[in-house]
Order: sequence, then structure tokens, then C-alpha cells
Amino acid sequence: MNHGLTRALAKHTASTAQQPLPQVLRHECARAFTNWVGCVLGGCSEEAVAMAADAVAELGGAPQAQIVGLGRRTDVASAAFVNCIASSVMAYDDAHLPTVTHPSGPVGAALLAFAQRHAVTGEAFARALHLGIEITCRLANMVVLPPARFHTGFYVTGLVAPIGVALAVGQLMGLDEDQLMHAVGIAASQSGGFRATHGTMTAHFRPGHAARAGVWAAQLAARGFTSDEHALEAPQGFLDVFAPGADPAVALADIGTRHEMLANAYKPYPCGIVIHPTIDACLELRERAGPGAEVEHVVLQVHPLALKLTGVREPRTTLESHVSLVHWAAAALVRGAASLPEMREDCIADPRIAALRASMETVADTTLSAGQAKAQVRWRDGRVMDIHIEQASGSSDRPLSDAQLDAKFQGQAAERLAAPAIEALRAQCWRLNELDDVGQNIGALLP
Amino acid sequence: MNHGLTRALAKHTASTAQQPLPQVLRHECARAFTNWVGCVLGGCSEEAVAMAADAVAELGGAPQAQIVGLGRRTDVASAAFVNCIASSVMAYDDAHLPTVTHPSGPVGAALLAFAQRHAVTGEAFARALHLGIEITCRLANMVVLPPARFHTGFYVTGLVAPIGVALAVGQLMGLDEDQLMHAVGIAASQSGGFRATHGTMTAHFRPGHAARAGVWAAQLAARGFTSDEHALEAPQGFLDVFAPGADPAVALADIGTRHEMLANAYKPYPCGIVIHPTIDACLELRERAGPGAEVEHVVLQVHPLALKLTGVREPRTTLESHVSLVHWAAAALVRGAASLPEMREDCIADPRIAALRASMETVADTTLSAGQAKAQVRWRDGRVMDIHIEQASGSSDRPLSDAQLDAKFQGQAAERLAAPAIEALRAQCWRLNELDDVGQNIGALLP
Repeated sequence: MNHGLTRALAKHTASTAQQPLPQVLRHECARAFTNWVGCVLGGCSEEAVAMAADAVAELGGAPQAQIVGLGRRTDVASAAFVNCIASSVMAYDDAHLPTVTHPSGPVGAALLAFAQRHAVTGEAFARALHLGIEITCRLANMVVLPPARFHTGFYVTGLVAPIGVALAVGQLMGLDEDQLMHAVGIAASQSGGFRATHGTMTAHFRPGHAARAGVWAAQLAARGFTSDEHALEAPQGFLDVFAPGADPAVALADIGTRHEMLANAYKPYPCGIVIHPTIDACLELRERAGPGAEVEHVVLQVHPLALKLTGVREPRTTLESHVSLVHWAAAALVRGAASLPEMREDCIADPRIAALRASMETVADTTLSAGQAKAQVRWRDGRVMDIHIEQASGSSDRPLSDAQLDAKFQGQAAERLAAPAIEALRAQCWRLNELDDVGQNIGALLP
Repeated sequence: MNHGLTRALAKHTASTAQQPLPQVLRHECARAFTNWVGCVLGGCSEEAVAMAADAVAELGGAPQAQIVGLGRRTDVASAAFVNCIASSVMAYDDAHLPTVTHPSGPVGAALLAFAQRHAVTGEAFARALHLGIEITCRLANMVVLPPARFHTGFYVTGLVAPIGVALAVGQLMGLDEDQLMHAVGIAASQSGGFRATHGTMTAHFRPGHAARAGVWAAQLAARGFTSDEHALEAPQGFLDVFAPGADPAVALADIGTRHEMLANAYKPYPCGIVIHPTIDACLELRERAGPGAEVEHVVLQVHPLALKLTGVREPRTTLESHVSLVHWAAAALVRGAASLPEMREDCIADPRIAALRASMETVADTTLSAGQAKAQVRWRDGRVMDIHIEQASGSSDRPLSDAQLDAKFQGQAAERLAAPAIEALRAQCWRLNELDDVGQNIGALLP
């Protein structure tokens, strides 16, 4: 690292611009892309998406790329913005568990929009998708994990995804190393966001904003717009203000041989990923207890971050349910399920579930990781059951299988498409690496 | 403050939406607007502006508002973005000295663009301009000054201006209190930026980005997009992450009776405002020494922030000159001037000025305020002169007179307009409060 992190990221991006991906990453890109397209279809009918689409329509961007599900086209940056909101709004998108970062939404949305404006092969698309996800996750590790002194109130995706997107889009645009270096700084100057808005539409606005922020950074850098060669690592730079003490080497360690993308998980449940081990626990106890058993009392033991990030006790809306640990525990115990129906308002308002949420005990346990949870349930019939989930389903040690991803995709796509159309799109997504023209090949099958 | 800062700002904005401004503020708005329009004209020929205009042209926004000086129109958000870059790029815009925040660029650019899309009277425009500047400066006080524990690496304008713009535009759009409250959170989620990019185009990108961020926030909130009622003051909210310990009462103290806008200064010199007292000192010593005197050695004593924010020792470009204390001291001593010609590359490269920059001693002096400076010059003829500037010219205690603002405007406008056109525009800017339709009345006179 002769030149510092900012330049090293630019150099890595430029030097891999023609490099074939190894098979494991080609396949992982197809998984990430399939999961992402499913999330867009599952979310595109939400009112937050319609509002965002109306707001960008007011500005009248050129019809360069689709707004999925709304039958409209807009400019690349605005399409990236709206489609990313769609993929985020059900909290069903992917998550890098070590840092609770959501990389594929901003990167996937920006790349698909770009690929509808300029022909991009599946090979180049997958390479850029991998790059954007890999860089986003690596920057997240650097920013969030010790030795960085990170304020957990910052919205990690909002901090790091603009940079990952800028490099991914910049690679497809063929930017040179200097341009990419400037794009990093322009992107980082748009980093921000905080967690107090989780549970509102702004929690999904911010990833969407990261998508377009990265597009703008690349577009400006392509025209010669300048930033600082040490924007990330300089005094008064990105790391100094957002993550003092962070070690730039963390972002680059073993890059090209160790793949942080493989620590990025596809969610089995549509809510904050720190809730997932608790849902696993509650679903399994529900199964063990058998039909008809009624809950008397519940104690949950979770990583402290689960309470900090998802501590809403009385959710009133779908968006608030995403950050309500007790809601999902209650829904899983009462209904034996934790999918799209359990985030709807009729489930949130169900008196049995509301009562159970209110009575539930939660304990922060620093001996647990964010992917672990313990639960104890006392049933009305007197039985007491304990469980310890050591790895949440969907986590990097228990990843969703391709078949599970297919099932998830089908459930999401069914919100907008009939079975034959779902099947055609599903198959095309899995063929990502072989496509001639991603924007056309995928776009033709999207609603 | 029953409801917290976020709601209080929304309530203030809604409740003043029809209130006439007192005369002192009507006049100050005309001064701020005239100064801002001059800065746009002085900066619109810079290459950073052309690059930004080309980047937004790629997205093809509807022709709703002018890009000043380029003979093009684009959508409101993009015009706000580009025109704000133009007003910022020469570092000649206004500055709120207690916090080194630049309010009029983002607020003025957003409002002028909006007023070219929707008819806005001069009265309503001035009211919104005052509101946006007042809120931006008050938020800056809250974020920067003790008891807030503020990291001076953050770019204050990038943090607070999106919120000021959102409220100003939201007031013109007639948003109700709830919508304005949501707009605050959406805007704050776009807050960010850091000082390591000062001296590059990104230092001017970021205010431009604040302008469009505020426009988007208002546009989204108008359509029902939600944020958090306590986005600013909640745990894990804006203040918690950007300025822990900040007191929300600071932003609201005596609002409506004490006018923070009056602490906003119009710069007499096109560079970082913390350099200004040093320029005053050097120009006065140059005057005292008389023609022909040559400098042998210089010692500058300045507030520590002046070295932190403007510590570039060897500027190579116009943009780097904005943050080079020693450059302006040297130019003032050698040329007896500190205006647009002294930021050009021929002055930066002048060997006498370069040698003087290199030999100059700078001392951080915590007994000085940011508006004060001391200088000692030893001349070749043996004379030694000391000076202590207790209030920089242009500061709130020594504000530029209307006549000085006129002279500044004429110098800036001469970059793009002939004398009769300058005079017509200058007169129209001063009539701001009486205009029927600001977008048309001003737009018709802009290049």
C-alpha cells in the first residue's frame, strides 16, 4: 500500500476490470442477483416505492432504465434509487452479518440501471457486482470492527455503499485509476445516515440514496471532477470522522484471494438480520411444542446489538416490524411462521401477538454473537423449553441453499407475476454470467 | 419544546409561512441574495461547473430551471446542484463565522431553481431564504459549539444545510407541519462530508449536493414519505452521531427575535474566511510600508482553526489556494491585493509569492478568535512592523457595506456580463422583496 487506501481501491478496481471471476464467485453473483431481483419484486408494490417514483418523475429524467413494477422509465440514477428502495423496503434483502450492511441493494440497483442504458455482458456485470459487494463489505469491516471506534448509531450501508457503487459503476464505465480514485472521494462525501430513522421509510431511502450517490460519483469523475487522493485515510477524511482508529489494511487484507462476499447472507426472514437467530429459536420451539400449545411466558437472550438495532417493543407498521425483535418472536411462536404475511398490519395488530410482545422478557447477553440467540418458553400446559441457536439460518455457516433461494424468489415474485413469468425470470437470473446483455435480457422479463 | 427539536423546526417553519419579515431581515435578505447571485456569476465559468452540468445533462432532467451562465436548463434539483457549485467554487460566498458554515449557496440555489419552476413572489422568496439561512446557522451553532463534542473534520455545511434547504423549499411548497417534520429527517439522512477534500472540486460538490438533498427531502415529504419524529434528537439520531452532547435548545434559543442570519458574513476575499483577518493584516502592513518595500520575513499568529482548515503550504491550483493561509498572506504582501486575480494560477506560481509562502512562519495562538490575527513583517530595509486585527473586515462587527457588496458584485458579474446588464441585474437583486415573480424577474437578466 504505497499510496494509501483511496488509491489502492482505485488500483484494484482498474486492474481487475478484465479479470475473469473464479467459479465460486460466478455462482455467488448469480445467487446475490437472484435474491436481489426477488427482493425488488417483493417490495415494488409498497407505497414508499410509489412515492419515490413520483418524486423522481417530477424531475423528468430521461427514460433510460426501468422502474421495476411501475411500468415507467427514468434516468439511470433515479432508477437505481427507486429500485433499491424496492429491494430494501421489506427488509428481505441480503446482509453482511459481521457488520449488518446491505450491499446488493445499492450495487445491484445501480448496475441494473446502468446496464439498461449501456449494453453490459453478464460477465462484466457479475464482475462489477462482485466488486461492489466485496468492497462494500470490506469497507464495512474496516469501519465497524475494532480497532475502529465506530458509533453504532451510524447507518453502515449509508457510509460504505456509495463507495462500493461508485467503483462498480466506474469499472463498467471503464474509468482509469485516477478517475476511480476521484470517484471514491466524491462518493464518500455523500456517505451518511443514522439508525434513528429505522422503522420509517427513510431507512430504505438511505440505501437508495447510496445507489444514486455512487452513480453520480462515477459520472462526475468520468468528466474530470476531482477529489482528494487520500479522501478516505487523510486527517479530517472519511475514516477520521466516521471511524477513528480504523485500520485501512482491514479493507485490503487478502483482497482477491479471500472473498468477503461469502460472508454476505441472504435472509430467510423479512426483518433485521440480528432478529434471525431468535426466529430460528422460536420456530423450533413452536414445532417441538406441537399444535395447540399456548405460550405463557418467554425469555429471550440475545446479542446486545439485537436490542440496540431492533428494540421496538410496540410496532404499529410494517416498517416498524422490521426492527422489532419481540414482534417476530411472538409471531413465530403464535403462527409458526415468519415470512411476508407476518410483517403485515393484520399480524402486527393480532391481540394474541400484541399481548405476547408486551409480556416478553429480553436480556442482552454479551457471551452471544449477533448470529446466536437463546430462548426459554413456558407453555400453559406447564412445559418449559430451552433452546440455544449457535448459528442463525441464512448465516455464512448455514447459508440458504440455491433451492431455498428459489423458494424465496417464487414467494416474492408471486406478488407481481404469474407462474410462467416467474419461472422465466428465475431461470434468467441464475444465468446471469452467461447473458449477452443484462439490461435487455433481464429487463424484458421484469414487470 | 414539548415535542423535540425535529418537530419544533417543522412547527416554526409552518407557523411563519405567512409572516412578514421585519425590515432588517428584508434588507439582509436582499444583501444575501445579491451577494449570492454575484458569486454564481463569478464562478459559473469554472471547469468544475461545466463538469457538473455535463453530468446532470447525461440524466436528461426536464428543463425546469436555468443553469446560470451555461445557457441550459435542467430539473430543479440539478439546477440547484450546479448553481450552488458555481456560487461556492471561488470560495467567495458567505460564511457564518462562528461555525465556518456557508448557508446562502445551498439555500439560494435551491430556492431560485424552485422559483423558476413555480411562481414565487419576492416576499415569499425572501421569507424562505431567511428561514433556510437562519435554520442552517442555528443548527451549525448547535453542532459545532460546546457543549457539542464536534469533530472538526466534518464539513459543517454538508451536515446542516440539507435541513435548512428542506425547510426553506418545504415552506414555499406549503408543506404542513408533519410533512416538514418528515422532510427534516429525510434531509438529515443525506448529511455528511468531511474536510479532507477541501482544496478539490469535492469541497464545492458537497454544498451543491446539500442543495439538491434538501429539494429531494421536501419533494418526498410532500408525497407522504416518512422519517422519524425525533430524527435529530433521538438516540442514534443526527445529533448523537455527528455532535454528541449537543444541546437542541441552542438551535431554538430566541428564534424569531434574535437573528443568527446577522452573524453571517459576506466575504471581502475569495478564500476561506478564517484567512480573512490575516489578509486584513497583510494588506494594511503593505500599505504602511509604502511602494517598493520588499518583505524579508513574516510571522503570522492565528486561531488554531485557521491552520487546521487552511493549512496548505504549497498550493498548486485555484482550488487549493482557497485553503492556503500562507498563499493569501504572501499575495497580499507582494501585490497589495486579495481578489479574484490573486487566486489564479499565475499568481500561485509567481516565484516571489512562492518563496514568501515557503519562508513564512505560522503560529497557532489560542488567545485569538477565528476573526482575529496578528502579523509581524520584517522588511528588507530593516523596518519591523506588527499589527493586531481584532475584527476581520466582513465579519459581523465590521460587515461589508451595501456599497462594498455592490463593488464585489460588479467585479464578479464582469466575468460574464457587460456593464448595462450588470447594472440591471444588480438593481433587480436589491429589489428582491418587491419582485412579483423571482424566477422570471431574475432569470430574465441572468446569462
